[in-house]
Amino acid sequence: MRRRVGICLALPFLTLAVTAPATHLRAQASPPETSVSRPSWLDSYREPASRLIGEAVGSTFAWDRLSILTDSIGNRLSGTAALDRAIQWAAAEMARDGLENVHTERVMVPRWVRGSESAEIVEPARHQLVMLGLGDSVGTSSAGGDVVQGEILVVRSFEELDAKAASARGRIVFFNAPFTSYGETVRFRSAGPSRAARHGAVGMLVRAVGPSGLRTPHTGALQYSSDAPKIPAAAITTEDADRLQRMADRGSRIVVRLKMDAHFEPDVESANVVGEIRGRERPDEIVVVSGHLDSWDVGAGATDDGGGCVVTWEALRIMKKLNLRPRRTVRVVLWTNEENGGRGGLAYRDQHRAELSKHVLMLESDGGVFRPLGFGFTGSDSARQAVKAIASLLTGIAADQVSVGGGGADIGPSVQEGHIPAMSLEVDGSKYFLIHHTPADTIDKIDPVEMAKCAAAVAVMAYVVADLPQRLD
Amino acid sequence: MRRRVGICLALPFLTLAVTAPATHLRAQASPPETSVSRPSWLDSYREPASRLIGEAVGSTFAWDRLSILTDSIGNRLSGTAALDRAIQWAAAEMARDGLENVHTERVMVPRWVRGSESAEIVEPARHQLVMLGLGDSVGTSSAGGDVVQGEILVVRSFEELDAKAASARGRIVFFNAPFTSYGETVRFRSAGPSRAARHGAVGMLVRAVGPSGLRTPHTGALQYSSDAPKIPAAAITTEDADRLQRMADRGSRIVVRLKMDAHFEPDVESANVVGEIRGRERPDEIVVVSGHLDSWDVGAGATDDGGGCVVTWEALRIMKKLNLRPRRTVRVVLWTNEENGGRGGLAYRDQHRAELSKHVLMLESDGGVFRPLGFGFTGSDSARQAVKAIASLLTGIAADQVSVGGGGADIGPSVQEGHIPAMSLEVDGSKYFLIHHTPADTIDKIDPVEMAKCAAAVAVMAYVVADLPQRLD
Repeated sequence: MRRRVGICLALPFLTLAVTAPATHLRAQASPPETSVSRPSWLDSYREPASRLIGEAVGSTFAWDRLSILTDSIGNRLSGTAALDRAIQWAAAEMARDGLENVHTERVMVPRWVRGSESAEIVEPARHQLVMLGLGDSVGTSSAGGDVVQGEILVVRSFEELDAKAASARGRIVFFNAPFTSYGETVRFRSAGPSRAARHGAVGMLVRAVGPSGLRTPHTGALQYSSDAPKIPAAAITTEDADRLQRMADRGSRIVVRLKMDAHFEPDVESANVVGEIRGRERPDEIVVVSGHLDSWDVGAGATDDGGGCVVTWEALRIMKKLNLRPRRTVRVVLWTNEENGGRGGLAYRDQHRAELSKHVLMLESDGGVFRPLGFGFTGSDSARQAVKAIASLLTGIAADQVSVGGGGADIGPSVQEGHIPAMSLEVDGSKYFLIHHTPADTIDKIDPVEMAKCAAAVAVMAYVVADLPQRLD
Repeated sequence: MRRRVGICLALPFLTLAVTAPATHLRAQASPPETSVSRPSWLDSYREPASRLIGEAVGSTFAWDRLSILTDSIGNRLSGTAALDRAIQWAAAEMARDGLENVHTERVMVPRWVRGSESAEIVEPARHQLVMLGLGDSVGTSSAGGDVVQGEILVVRSFEELDAKAASARGRIVFFNAPFTSYGETVRFRSAGPSRAARHGAVGMLVRAVGPSGLRTPHTGALQYSSDAPKIPAAAITTEDADRLQRMADRGSRIVVRLKMDAHFEPDVESANVVGEIRGRERPDEIVVVSGHLDSWDVGAGATDDGGGCVVTWEALRIMKKLNLRPRRTVRVVLWTNEENGGRGGLAYRDQHRAELSKHVLMLESDGGVFRPLGFGFTGSDSARQAVKAIASLLTGIAADQVSVGGGGADIGPSVQEGHIPAMSLEVDGSKYFLIHHTPADTIDKIDPVEMAKCAAAVAVMAYVVADLPQRLD
């Protein structure tokens, strides 16, 4: 578990890439549905589960709430006024929902500012590239001048870069690895800049980490290594990547000029937002459900991860509305700074260290709120049996799968330190990486009915885990 | 025919919208395939048709040539150095192909310059809109200030605008009509600015004329009326359109700021590019095949209409390579200025007025070079019978349909004045309007095999029409 969670932290969305093959394997390896054990307590939860599902799918409340967030507040990068507004709005709305112990928990977050940016081919002829600077990149003035200009060195892998290391000095290295899975390909975005800089490159471009869209660039964070100079780095669209590749294959000398005003400003105060349904018998035992409220500064942060915030929050709103108060406390946490720092998750671990042992389960929804399939889960075998039994209550909305491996970037630090059972909401991921970290991450990509089903799934799982006679072990 | 061609001129792509229903009707109305008359000459063309098809689909020459155009020269708006380079390149390459009488024909074209542009919601809170100014729009300094700012009036139709005319004064009218067909919806882009201006609007936004993409704006020309002030106009993405609609539906007062540096500069010299295979018996009788070399200034002008240029040109290259010289002359024309003026087509009519009566057929390919279906045709019944017989030679590549209605914006003026049989290449249009006039109009959207089949279809049709014992009447 330790190692797994560690990976999740470094590469926030690896969960998806990991669970996809797991899903595939499960279809072959899992015992058939009928062999799921039917614990004695299961039948008593059919009625509340039905009510929770009915309430969730009986309206478009979740989608409507997300539309307010994404229309009125828009995207929410750490350190922006928009994220502050989202935090205040969420806390106020949670209080209006009747949630208990609603409060914000202070977190200092980095403030990375994209500024204006552009990239263009200047030789053999001038052509604009459609690009997005990578999150946390330095700007092009860091090297002294105003722009960074260099001949392109196209490589398809780290191995090819290493083999051509002698050619990298003074050039802009362009990683043009075809998108396979996110886990496989994101490393060029994350580690590529420092890998290139170690060989003397002055800038780095990466083929957008996602399938081909409509000239759609994908941003996302890079991770500079301490042993390499920081060079500016940006993602270009698959169309422009293919074009550069063709030009290189024809033997053209390609010179690109990169201009990025990106820079960091001093850390600023932000917050995780917390609300609860206090447990009626064991309020000190806690089930956490969560999403991250911050987003990249392009698109509207709808799928990543406004939707995750709203559907987990919705689980509590529905319980409250139906007056369903479980034995244990259900807590929703809307994390800050998932995208470029993970400071919200780290702060929660530190601020709640004393009660981590009382955390029964932590769930994160950060893979979109498309058609729900069920859950990924990391925990003991006996806990898995209980979770699978609970998931069987979601057969009616086809969200009853429990696959191997659950987690998330924000719950990661607490899960790791507290050895807490970890869960992720699993959904149809076919559209996710097309819009992930792009200007097209807007609410119209989300279906209100599918989203309502996501809320239903989280509500049933959280309610029953929190209400079980015996704590999940 | 007159009326039809007139419409094609004003709305360059209406052909597609018109032929789609026609295709649908044809399936019900046409006599079955076996009833296509088999003229005595048909069998003698099976061998050359097979050779032309084999040569076209035996390589990726057409796609590779288009990749040179779109990679190295890029997009080609009228009046730009890029279009000049494309004209020089095409003429040089035609000569290298061995085409005859290769030359350029001078055309003065408008030079519209987009300049920098942006749109943002400033009330109730600041949010950037993804936009593209409409071609031929005035800039926002035309009204005196630097920007145009106004409250949004959302309407879904001209009727709704007229009903709300009293509210339009001083506002930015936003036409948010859902995309149905291009012919149905493009009128808001074309006529919307003047319709809004007549009621006192200071600016105009239009929902991008195309299906929902990935935050993809679509440009395209507007047509100002002489009886209304010229106001700046831009297209926004369907995502942003939906957002504005939701905000308006919630009763929000929405204020948008538009900044566009768009302006015209003096007309500049451009050219149509012409090459021929001279006829061996009646060289003064001419079959024209054509596409337009100019494009919008976003994307690479691959589908609109670099592909049309290359596949029609390819028809002649292949004839030359196979040493197939028909009785009559086959002439390829690569038009200038289709997108915002149609000056290339008008100039051809004027410069070739004396020989219009010798034009046997004019074909234009401007609907993309996706999987070919066949042709749209406008002409006499007897000519249609001949064309259908020729198309039957394309059954092997499933490009044998002949539907009612053929034409194109560039051949329109000549066709109309000379009463010339008119033809368009018809292809699977399902992807066309997703990328049309967008930054995503790049060559990766085009399949080399489908494109080669388009070239084959044009080559066979042009060769046989040019070689028929009797002139198409």
